[in-house]
Amino acid sequence: MKRNLEPGWASVPMRWVGPIRIVGTEVDDQVMVPLATFEAPLWPSVARGARVSTLCGGIRAVVVDERMTRSVILEAPDAPCALGVAQAARSRFAELAAAAQRTSRYAELIDIHTQIAGNLLFVRFEYRTGDAAGHNMTTAASQAAMEWLLQEYPALCYVSISGNYCTDKKASAVNGILGRGRNVVTEITVTRAVCRRLLKTTPERLVELHVRKNLIGTMLAGGLRTANAHYANMLLAFYLATGQDGANVVEGAQGFVHAECRGDALYFSATVPHVIVGTVGPGKTLEFARRNLEMMGCTATREPGRNARRLAVIAAATVLCGELSLLAAQTNPGELMQAHLKLERP
Amino acid sequence: MKRNLEPGWASVPMRWVGPIRIVGTEVDDQVMVPLATFEAPLWPSVARGARVSTLCGGIRAVVVDERMTRSVILEAPDAPCALGVAQAARSRFAELAAAAQRTSRYAELIDIHTQIAGNLLFVRFEYRTGDAAGHNMTTAASQAAMEWLLQEYPALCYVSISGNYCTDKKASAVNGILGRGRNVVTEITVTRAVCRRLLKTTPERLVELHVRKNLIGTMLAGGLRTANAHYANMLLAFYLATGQDGANVVEGAQGFVHAECRGDALYFSATVPHVIVGTVGPGKTLEFARRNLEMMGCTATREPGRNARRLAVIAAATVLCGELSLLAAQTNPGELMQAHLKLERP
Amino acid sequence: MKRNLEPGWASVPMRWVGPIRIVGTEVDDQVMVPLATFEAPLWPSVARGARVSTLCGGIRAVVVDERMTRSVILEAPDAPCALGVAQAARSRFAELAAAAQRTSRYAELIDIHTQIAGNLLFVRFEYRTGDAAGHNMTTAASQAAMEWLLQEYPALCYVSISGNYCTDKKASAVNGILGRGRNVVTEITVTRAVCRRLLKTTPERLVELHVRKNLIGTMLAGGLRTANAHYANMLLAFYLATGQDGANVVEGAQGFVHAECRGDALYFSATVPHVIVGTVGPGKTLEFARRNLEMMGCTATREPGRNARRLAVIAAATVLCGELSLLAAQTNPGELMQAHLKLERP
Amino acid sequence: MKRNLEPGWASVPMRWVGPIRIVGTEVDDQVMVPLATFEAPLWPSVARGARVSTLCGGIRAVVVDERMTRSVILEAPDAPCALGVAQAARSRFAELAAAAQRTSRYAELIDIHTQIAGNLLFVRFEYRTGDAAGHNMTTAASQAAMEWLLQEYPALCYVSISGNYCTDKKASAVNGILGRGRNVVTEITVTRAVCRRLLKTTPERLVELHVRKNLIGTMLAGGLRTANAHYANMLLAFYLATGQDGANVVEGAQGFVHAECRGDALYFSATVPHVIVGTVGPGKTLEFARRNLEMMGCTATREPGRNARRLAVIAAATVLCGELSLLAAQTNPGELMQAHLKLERP
Repeated sequence: MKRNLEPGWASVPMRWVGPIRIVGTEVDDQVMVPLATFEAPLWPSVARGARVSTLCGGIRAVVVDERMTRSVILEAPDAPCALGVAQAARSRFAELAAAAQRTSRYAELIDIHTQIAGNLLFVRFEYRTGDAAGHNMTTAASQAAMEWLLQEYPALCYVSISGNYCTDKKASAVNGILGRGRNVVTEITVTRAVCRRLLKTTPERLVELHVRKNLIGTMLAGGLRTANAHYANMLLAFYLATGQDGANVVEGAQGFVHAECRGDALYFSATVPHVIVGTVGPGKTLEFARRNLEMMGCTATREPGRNARRLAVIAAATVLCGELSLLAAQTNPGELMQAHLKLERP
Repeated sequence: MKRNLEPGWASVPMRWVGPIRIVGTEVDDQVMVPLATFEAPLWPSVARGARVSTLCGGIRAVVVDERMTRSVILEAPDAPCALGVAQAARSRFAELAAAAQRTSRYAELIDIHTQIAGNLLFVRFEYRTGDAAGHNMTTAASQAAMEWLLQEYPALCYVSISGNYCTDKKASAVNGILGRGRNVVTEITVTRAVCRRLLKTTPERLVELHVRKNLIGTMLAGGLRTANAHYANMLLAFYLATGQDGANVVEGAQGFVHAECRGDALYFSATVPHVIVGTVGPGKTLEFARRNLEMMGCTATREPGRNARRLAVIAAATVLCGELSLLAAQTNPGELMQAHLKLERP
Repeated sequence: MKRNLEPGWASVPMRWVGPIRIVGTEVDDQVMVPLATFEAPLWPSVARGARVSTLCGGIRAVVVDERMTRSVILEAPDAPCALGVAQAARSRFAELAAAAQRTSRYAELIDIHTQIAGNLLFVRFEYRTGDAAGHNMTTAASQAAMEWLLQEYPALCYVSISGNYCTDKKASAVNGILGRGRNVVTEITVTRAVCRRLLKTTPERLVELHVRKNLIGTMLAGGLRTANAHYANMLLAFYLATGQDGANVVEGAQGFVHAECRGDALYFSATVPHVIVGTVGPGKTLEFARRNLEMMGCTATREPGRNARRLAVIAAATVLCGELSLLAAQTNPGELMQAHLKLERP
Repeated sequence: MKRNLEPGWASVPMRWVGPIRIVGTEVDDQVMVPLATFEAPLWPSVARGARVSTLCGGIRAVVVDERMTRSVILEAPDAPCALGVAQAARSRFAELAAAAQRTSRYAELIDIHTQIAGNLLFVRFEYRTGDAAGHNMTTAASQAAMEWLLQEYPALCYVSISGNYCTDKKASAVNGILGRGRNVVTEITVTRAVCRRLLKTTPERLVELHVRKNLIGTMLAGGLRTANAHYANMLLAFYLATGQDGANVVEGAQGFVHAECRGDALYFSATVPHVIVGTVGPGKTLEFARRNLEMMGCTATREPGRNARRLAVIAAATVLCGELSLLAAQTNPGELMQAHLKLERP
């Protein structure tokens, strides 16, 4: 019995799907993608979307924003003092950035945002973090930035190195509005013929379903900055297969499909605002992860951030494939259930 | 190269922490808990909370609710018709339940809720699902229930087997208000001495931090039904180690710490409304998962739901341990960073 | 100077618009509607929607739900005790209802919902309140119900007569999911010809705008259970003109437009889940309010709730008129601005 | 009968309460405040808070931010094009601002924010608007800015002059995170003696109630950026009495109380992030409104924005008075109900 308590491994089944055809300045390639999941139907679902990508000219992908964040809480004696420090932090941004950046040659403070509630001051530090997802790097840098503030403004007191205005692995609006992780927009134009043949649906039915389910249904549910069917499934499988912290799917699950009929075709896009991945850091040195990153060409360059950006684009394209496929399936009564039955009980 | 594309495993490092002392009608035991994660600092953090549990009389745990859900969308010709069907579904609940339950001997329809937006009718079916997490079981049952509605009310048209009013793996309010998964409340009373010695803090400082960070900070961030520091971390590690679908951390991340000073001690509770686990189903048959479930005594009984309920309680108690420990660390400037440095760069 | 501090009146300009044609079981009539506002463009905007209603067979309206709510907070020694009381409150519902209803012959307790956070128990009482909006009636009834609970379960302590799980005049999801106020769905089918002639637009353009603005735009903004352009404007003007508490527009602003092309026409619906109005109570006895209620036929019957229900339906139909008109205007670049210029600077 | 359809007035009862003692750089004065409401208990409730302000050294108030916003939607052929324009709008900010400001000598474009969903580009324009609340001024300016964008980037198409990312009179997170209206933080330190004598409570009980009701209760309700009891009541009464558009209480209802025990006293703050008021514009020219603005000294200066800023500070201080008073009442079982009974049924 005792032996069982020794360290071990939770081994999640992994398969390669694809290739996914991606076009754009960041990635212009056909990429096989590893997905690790206990839910077998995910593989053929994403694979179907990937097949669409190769038949319809590829998934266009663009990185709209990238930053990793950490917020601290400081206590001022009163609100005017809190406001004074908030203003000073902005006007002395260069000094603050210098203090933060002393902790790492990769962390670069690019912006700050503040909130004041009574005498409490929340400062959200926003960084470039190279090829790291950046959680630890931004904590270290924010610790240093905070210490600088406490030293320069001795009326302040420390409250917390993390003030939930960051916000890490929690449903929020702040991450979507101010940015957290890489914000990748992916899109594809699917011909009516491919809709019919591969997706067993029409552009009209898919758009209608998306509006009623992803937009209206989510709003009725009290959803927050979310209009998708199952971003979380693709992201978790991708994260596990590449040594990422899978809990980042909490933010990852927030994002927006936008679909419209264009002429005779389907315009389908998946905006994935919170792809939180790195090619270095904990998990990435494990054999399977390192190999998977290599296979996708995400260890090739030495330009900081370039590898992680490529990885983020591939993750987002994978999300599009899975979204497109599941939504198509749900336009047909019974199809989703049949897929599960077929795949899970061989 | 080709060889690398064969199926494989994403192996996540797993360690046992504990024992955690749990008291209550569902679990009254000391339990070792397996956690699989790429983030090494999680283990000692949860272990510290576990140590507190053994010194302070254990973590009291109670299951407040349990249900798994699926919503469908139906289209009526107009709103009065949609309302008529919504009312009929309630008044003919027994027939509807019978239709749903024909699909599985474990699925039991216990309630329905409806929303009407214009002529669209959303029906949220809520089930007991025995020892399964229940995603597939509820899809099958809801498919049958929906077909019954479509047959009885031919004015309706099918829109979707899943209407995002369920809602699966997306940030929402509906899950917390109507219930999804097992809602477990855990609580402990920590003496001042244990606060000081193990947690390096005081009841007062921990309560103050919780209010400012978990409550005010999250609200400032536009958080939704969330007042915690990092539920997602513990839940993902627990889910992976027990063969669960880790993407359920999206809902799992929503939940509430409540902490207060009581006399000279700290009252600390973690309400975890969305523990979504099963002891049967995909993932649970893998060797490591089966063994881990056994080790925690979660395969012992044949009473449907009892094993999964035990597992849910252990998961929630694990969440409390990790929350308590991290919050304590954040009351001290610098402690969080030092822990990361020590643990990740040996 | 001193004289100026005497009580007086804030007089809001009021005009009649309409008639609005409404069809349904609750209201089947043409109704002139009084709107009090400082924003002059609102009158012609609603009037245009009203004109559409008379040309296109009327606005169908149905009351989906009606209830007024108040939540209390009770403190239990621990979570198991809180759960015990929550369960008892449901199993002893008849006694609880009897205690609540002793306070008024109009208040009828129809349901309760509970939430537990640690050792705190929130009980949301839900009532029929006859022709009153019901804020005070439900407070009195909930006070009595709470006192009964405190007496029957002496382990509990009082925390608050209002626990914000009600929730009154605050943005939330609970009101939409569990109900608060009268939930009225209104809908109309507008021919292409009327779209073109009166609304200067087409069904396609209006639907497209609605999806992009009300659904996607609101989601991007971190909106909560909201998919409309300006419900609040119509509701406030209607509330002020009929002696209602205008602060109820906070909940009123949450609601859903759903619009689709149907054949050659536009299907347009406004679901208004939180119409909070009464025909009796503070404000309604003022001369102008009493007369306005009479003019709309909302003082005619003695069947409790019937007058207020009629008033709620008229309010919701007014909302539809204003929504339809503004959305139509925004499909045309420049039209909104020109309307403001023409109307506000004569 | 016909005569009744002529224009008239909805006259809301108005009383003066106070004086409220305010200290700070913007307002350092004792101010009588007019409140128009159908709910009589509001007056003595605010008056009690005002009395506290005079006994405890006044309410400190500071304006943290001020801006009025309007967002537009533009359609690009694809996401890369949308991103290109978003980047260009920032890099050519001076030209964009010049285009916007051509429409008014008071509108000053101070910042923009963008969101991209697929091929849709949302641009949120943020302005100083002098002494006007600024709704119409920002619409005109944004129309001009949008036209400039459409002219410079002809690949874009017009979608909407208002994209709900503004967002006007709807519950959202964007307004709180990026700012909309004047963000005023007010705070006061109340001695234990005044707590006991005037508020019939203690610092400890009030803080405890605030945490449980405003923070936990609101979170349980799925509240969004809200931690208060009834901001909306005070704001609506203040808005109506000063000729403001009362529907702005929708945003106004979002805001944060923060209360703590400090030594033997109560620190109580009301952060009111969305005070949306003007001293010029529709409503403000009516006799009663003009006089009330004068009485509060809000028509005195010619420095643009100064009068409105003063008005905003007074509004926020009024909010604090009403919040403090109601929360104090709710610490005592029965007090709220007795107040209503006494005041409404004379």
